[in-house]
Amino acid sequence: MRKTVCDLHAELVRNSLVAWTAGNVSGRIPGEDLFVIKPSGVSYDELTPEAMVVCDLDGNLVEGDHAPSSDTAAHAYVYRHLPEVGGVVHTHSTYASAWASRNEPIPCVLTAMADEFGGQIPVGPFALIGDDSIGQGIVETLSGARSPAVLMRNHGVFTIGKDPKAAVKAAVMCEDVARTVHIARQLGEPLPIPQADIDRLYDRYQNVYGQRSTR
Amino acid sequence: MRKTVCDLHAELVRNSLVAWTAGNVSGRIPGEDLFVIKPSGVSYDELTPEAMVVCDLDGNLVEGDHAPSSDTAAHAYVYRHLPEVGGVVHTHSTYASAWASRNEPIPCVLTAMADEFGGQIPVGPFALIGDDSIGQGIVETLSGARSPAVLMRNHGVFTIGKDPKAAVKAAVMCEDVARTVHIARQLGEPLPIPQADIDRLYDRYQNVYGQRSTR
Amino acid sequence: MRKTVCDLHAELVRNSLVAWTAGNVSGRIPGEDLFVIKPSGVSYDELTPEAMVVCDLDGNLVEGDHAPSSDTAAHAYVYRHLPEVGGVVHTHSTYASAWASRNEPIPCVLTAMADEFGGQIPVGPFALIGDDSIGQGIVETLSGARSPAVLMRNHGVFTIGKDPKAAVKAAVMCEDVARTVHIARQLGEPLPIPQADIDRLYDRYQNVYGQRSTR
Amino acid sequence: MRKTVCDLHAELVRNSLVAWTAGNVSGRIPGEDLFVIKPSGVSYDELTPEAMVVCDLDGNLVEGDHAPSSDTAAHAYVYRHLPEVGGVVHTHSTYASAWASRNEPIPCVLTAMADEFGGQIPVGPFALIGDDSIGQGIVETLSGARSPAVLMRNHGVFTIGKDPKAAVKAAVMCEDVARTVHIARQLGEPLPIPQADIDRLYDRYQNVYGQRSTR
Repeated sequence: MRKTVCDLHAELVRNSLVAWTAGNVSGRIPGEDLFVIKPSGVSYDELTPEAMVVCDLDGNLVEGDHAPSSDTAAHAYVYRHLPEVGGVVHTHSTYASAWASRNEPIPCVLTAMADEFGGQIPVGPFALIGDDSIGQGIVETLSGARSPAVLMRNHGVFTIGKDPKAAVKAAVMCEDVARTVHIARQLGEPLPIPQADIDRLYDRYQNVYGQRSTR
Repeated sequence: MRKTVCDLHAELVRNSLVAWTAGNVSGRIPGEDLFVIKPSGVSYDELTPEAMVVCDLDGNLVEGDHAPSSDTAAHAYVYRHLPEVGGVVHTHSTYASAWASRNEPIPCVLTAMADEFGGQIPVGPFALIGDDSIGQGIVETLSGARSPAVLMRNHGVFTIGKDPKAAVKAAVMCEDVARTVHIARQLGEPLPIPQADIDRLYDRYQNVYGQRSTR
Repeated sequence: MRKTVCDLHAELVRNSLVAWTAGNVSGRIPGEDLFVIKPSGVSYDELTPEAMVVCDLDGNLVEGDHAPSSDTAAHAYVYRHLPEVGGVVHTHSTYASAWASRNEPIPCVLTAMADEFGGQIPVGPFALIGDDSIGQGIVETLSGARSPAVLMRNHGVFTIGKDPKAAVKAAVMCEDVARTVHIARQLGEPLPIPQADIDRLYDRYQNVYGQRSTR
Repeated sequence: MRKTVCDLHAELVRNSLVAWTAGNVSGRIPGEDLFVIKPSGVSYDELTPEAMVVCDLDGNLVEGDHAPSSDTAAHAYVYRHLPEVGGVVHTHSTYASAWASRNEPIPCVLTAMADEFGGQIPVGPFALIGDDSIGQGIVETLSGARSPAVLMRNHGVFTIGKDPKAAVKAAVMCEDVARTVHIARQLGEPLPIPQADIDRLYDRYQNVYGQRSTR
């Protein structure tokens, strides 16, 4: 799991989701109340499986030589309250954060968005770091929603998945559709996709292809 | 042909036409009613010639260890109805998909666009995956058109060519002109190119340079 | 000179100035009425010094196994009429082409633009490929201008320099300022730089730093 | 220090902050009235620790085979007047320069911006190269400000830090937030973050994480 989570950080870089050290991936250790997360302030180039840290579901450091990511409390809160979640990703990816700063959900006007998100990508509340506010905002917004991604107001994106790779995929797709819909709206209004078609696309993608099974 | 089609997927990545696994290339096997296509859900890094799958023109798997791309039915429909086509590419490239989501064809305001597309890039209908709707939309829109690219409404791009490389070139050029014309229109209206000049540029490019011979 | 010109094509790719094969660099062979240019339709990956072709100043192939670039006539016209030019570059770089398609010169609102271009970047006429029209448009627009770059209407960019590297630098800087000024204008009007300050910056850059000596 | 400053230039390239040779990093040599800076006009690929030059706090060359960067006077002025600064970075990064050309500070509408900059990123005066005007503009704008970055009008960005790495981080984050806030504002107005929350975020980031200690 250390290696998996470590390697997935390279996907954040490769997909241009992160600047400097501002993004992190975590993964729940199957069968245990523990998760692996990025250490704080370490650059992506220097990440090794050994440098990854292990925390319990209250966000306390259990194993590792570095302090855990400053976003650990939010990850821990998600694992504590959403037992089906096996991976969490946080980024400040550009287009998604732009929607978040305007407090606007991303409307579902692309079939790829219907597939992956099943509708719009919602915005969660403004919340300060330092206590459980961010975690609560994520869990409240995503509970009962189809979307594995939430735009946290004036902040950035959190995504969840059955495992860390699924959460990274959601983060990549979230930025991709955030960018495409932004660009579409710059020169007019995209046509809506009827709800019944969104439902059909989502059901097919989740069931026929079965690429997300946590929700 | 497996190797050719496999390698061309790297061009999709290199030209930033695809996020995650959302894009695919296929190539007709000369002299046979078969085509090679990307397997479903395999990342571009892990693609090998051996992993590519072979389908018949109804989209049935003929050879290969993986399921064929979920877009196989659309590729098969194109090969069935357009015998001169030897390659098909599908992407959700950002700028082209933005035009597609607004149901707007891309106007021909660049000489490079007159060369390659011979006029505007048209929009095809909204169509759901799962039957022949997408394939029909592609074939109806491209039959009799000069453009080797069609923007499928709220979805993405399909391009065709005499071989897979020509279809990839059309996909690269489609996104390139989609982006340039989008950016041009952000600050005003691009000047039109007179139809007679578009015709002259297209004829010269197709005949003197002969880089596309299928249409 | 073959190697220099060959290697400089990698700069076009690295600076994202070109899609597919749509851009070329040429260099005058010092002391001879000849220049080296990219062969037509060869991908940047496959360029080698040996593949480069040599033409005379009428654009006739003198040496090489491939046909010269389809833009050779324009390069030849420039060398014929501007004896101080030792390098020419042509691209369809995105932002510059967007300005070109609107027939709008890029206003000089950045000190880096005053340094390199000495004022606005002008637009040349709409011209079809196939005779000397493009070359004439370039030479007429750049004669007497400070700018080593011209935006050819609905087409793309041509840049000149004392040698091929200087022309490539001008192409890179042209796209860089085309992008920055475009983005600046998306949210308002950039402040103008007074002409006297543009003159001072240009004089200093050209004389103190002496990075361009052909004009 | 030569190696540190040399290597940090690769971060400018990797983060797409610079075109051609237009950006530089310097670092004060601890305990001495000297700093290391990029040589003038050398490409980033050819930079080696040995090629870096050493200057005194008046900007005079003390050691090195090349002329120092043409921005050396501005760096020297900053070191002379801000003794706590150990690193300075200058770029013309695209989005930051766009704000600079409109003479508009970047409003603080992202939590990451509150963390790193503690509020808006201010604009400094228009100043010509050649004397101390640029240095004075930087020092006047940043003295007493929380922001380690200043947008110099119609020019570009200067950032400072306790060491060169911190200044590079500020340059990377400055462009990142300049881009995100620009994109946010293209489709509406981002919500402001209340000043008290900005203060809380800034205090926590500077004190708990202690990633910047110079100001």
